[in-house]
Amino acid sequence: MRVLITGAAGMIGRKLTESIATRASLGEREVSALDLADTLVPTAPDDAPGGLRLAADIAAPDTAARLVANRPDVIVHLAALPSAGAEDFFERGYAINLDGTRSLLDAIRAEAHSAPYHPRLIFSSTIAVFGAPFPDRIGDDFLAAPLTSYGTQKVMGELMISDYSRRGFLDGISLRLPTICIRPGKPNLAASGFFSNILREPLIGQEAELPVPETTRHWFASPRAAVGFIHHAADLDLARLGPRRALNMPGVSATVAEQIDALRRIAGEKATRLIIRKPDPKIAAIVAGWPRDFDTRRASELGFRADAGFDDILLAHIEDELQGSLPVNART
Amino acid sequence: MRVLITGAAGMIGRKLTESIATRASLGEREVSALDLADTLVPTAPDDAPGGLRLAADIAAPDTAARLVANRPDVIVHLAALPSAGAEDFFERGYAINLDGTRSLLDAIRAEAHSAPYHPRLIFSSTIAVFGAPFPDRIGDDFLAAPLTSYGTQKVMGELMISDYSRRGFLDGISLRLPTICIRPGKPNLAASGFFSNILREPLIGQEAELPVPETTRHWFASPRAAVGFIHHAADLDLARLGPRRALNMPGVSATVAEQIDALRRIAGEKATRLIIRKPDPKIAAIVAGWPRDFDTRRASELGFRADAGFDDILLAHIEDELQGSLPVNART
Repeated sequence: MRVLITGAAGMIGRKLTESIATRASLGEREVSALDLADTLVPTAPDDAPGGLRLAADIAAPDTAARLVANRPDVIVHLAALPSAGAEDFFERGYAINLDGTRSLLDAIRAEAHSAPYHPRLIFSSTIAVFGAPFPDRIGDDFLAAPLTSYGTQKVMGELMISDYSRRGFLDGISLRLPTICIRPGKPNLAASGFFSNILREPLIGQEAELPVPETTRHWFASPRAAVGFIHHAADLDLARLGPRRALNMPGVSATVAEQIDALRRIAGEKATRLIIRKPDPKIAAIVAGWPRDFDTRRASELGFRADAGFDDILLAHIEDELQGSLPVNART
Repeated sequence: MRVLITGAAGMIGRKLTESIATRASLGEREVSALDLADTLVPTAPDDAPGGLRLAADIAAPDTAARLVANRPDVIVHLAALPSAGAEDFFERGYAINLDGTRSLLDAIRAEAHSAPYHPRLIFSSTIAVFGAPFPDRIGDDFLAAPLTSYGTQKVMGELMISDYSRRGFLDGISLRLPTICIRPGKPNLAASGFFSNILREPLIGQEAELPVPETTRHWFASPRAAVGFIHHAADLDLARLGPRRALNMPGVSATVAEQIDALRRIAGEKATRLIIRKPDPKIAAIVAGWPRDFDTRRASELGFRADAGFDDILLAHIEDELQGSLPVNART
């Protein structure tokens, strides 16, 4: 089958591309062609299936029509202006996150005018659709009340995907991803960055700052788990979801103290000493408004699987990013 | 102050216009100018405040800019393609209900470029944002999961209004209105029409068909209560809502049997004999997917008030639509 990934140059996009190349499939089905689009031309491993490698702005006119012209069987729509960007650039956020998604849906609908076309659409949504106040564990029936423009635009995309699916224009699912941890790469300035920094940096012998109390609890999935959700969503019979096509993905609820305990078990006490307590009330206040835990019954019943815990999240990171071993200077 | 009503020729729009004319105010504040817009030129009572009387398509370019050019202090946005229309005309529904609302929000934002402008925006939303399955009583934290394109577009409007309010572009509130009963006028073919027909027609000595069992429970507000919500929303300090600017309005939860009991008390046994049982499984199936009851704690704490019960709903209808008395042939 033919698969299209938008936002293919992003972190999840690259990991998904790699895993499709390795498995030669998305879910259980063989991938014969893989179209990749992003604002910069996405790269792919040599063994990835051939297909378009497209630099395109999803918010520009005609981009969506070009993307679906080859009639991909599965579209994984990851392209987005992330949280801080959509907050800083109001119009651009609505253009990319709302109009970009809508233009993709409408291009699919238009493509069906010439001959039947009813692709699977997998949309990456986020726990940023939730805003405080909420219960300690958020259930599947809890309202989406975002506190950012990004979260607002993601819920709007979810709603359209449920409606377009109900109307028979496509077969869509929205995956509300937990905070991804450990994010590979360099430390970044996102308010959530420290959750990854305090594990990733000590694993390679570098210091990292912790701006919040160790009692801070949050909701996590590894990059590997997130890619696994997408593979699973590609195979699933979405009729089982009924009309509610947005799902809270399973994750690991953990405190910073539990993250650090896992780091200690995997990399030793010395690694944990590289975490520098540097309280930042501003970041602590932002994080206090984030979800801490979920009861993801629907997703679990549909077969979506979380990481087993933070030890596994650390081990997956070491396998995937550090060639399976820790640098000598990080060992106890 | 200056007030703009979009969809002013609709049922709620006309009743709101009349009440503004009668009170010479919206909420507690005097109305010096009243702009009315709809697809056909709206009419107003002679004693209504002067202002624009505009035939305009809210989905057309520049309509929104024209509407806000006079900088109304309060905008009551009622214009919409209703449920059946948005289901039958997919693109038109998104154009009017989503793009129309968004263009109004963006016109407000653009108007503020030349000089500060931060109007109150009151958006008529609907319990059609909810879709089965739901609990017997829907609480304030329950998710919006619409089963119609109309409901989808209304939630999307709510989300934008919360986001634009949070960003400081306007001061918005979305009122999720119960099913309006008794709708004045003629019987119509909407699936919900019978809830009004079985009261309104017998009150004037006419027969009306009942397509569902008498045990059917639903959620209602009179036109008078709906207009009252808008007056109340015009005065309210919306900072009290926090970032969640969409509110389930209070209403009356009643079965069809309770409706008929009220009709018997107000108009006598003879009136109830004009209700013809004519079961329609298709309508019964649609109505089975509708909300039955709400716990509207937030709205009640903010001072929104429902009708006291169906006797009051009937008496209000007789006062407002039948000059305060029943025709002789409808009396017992």
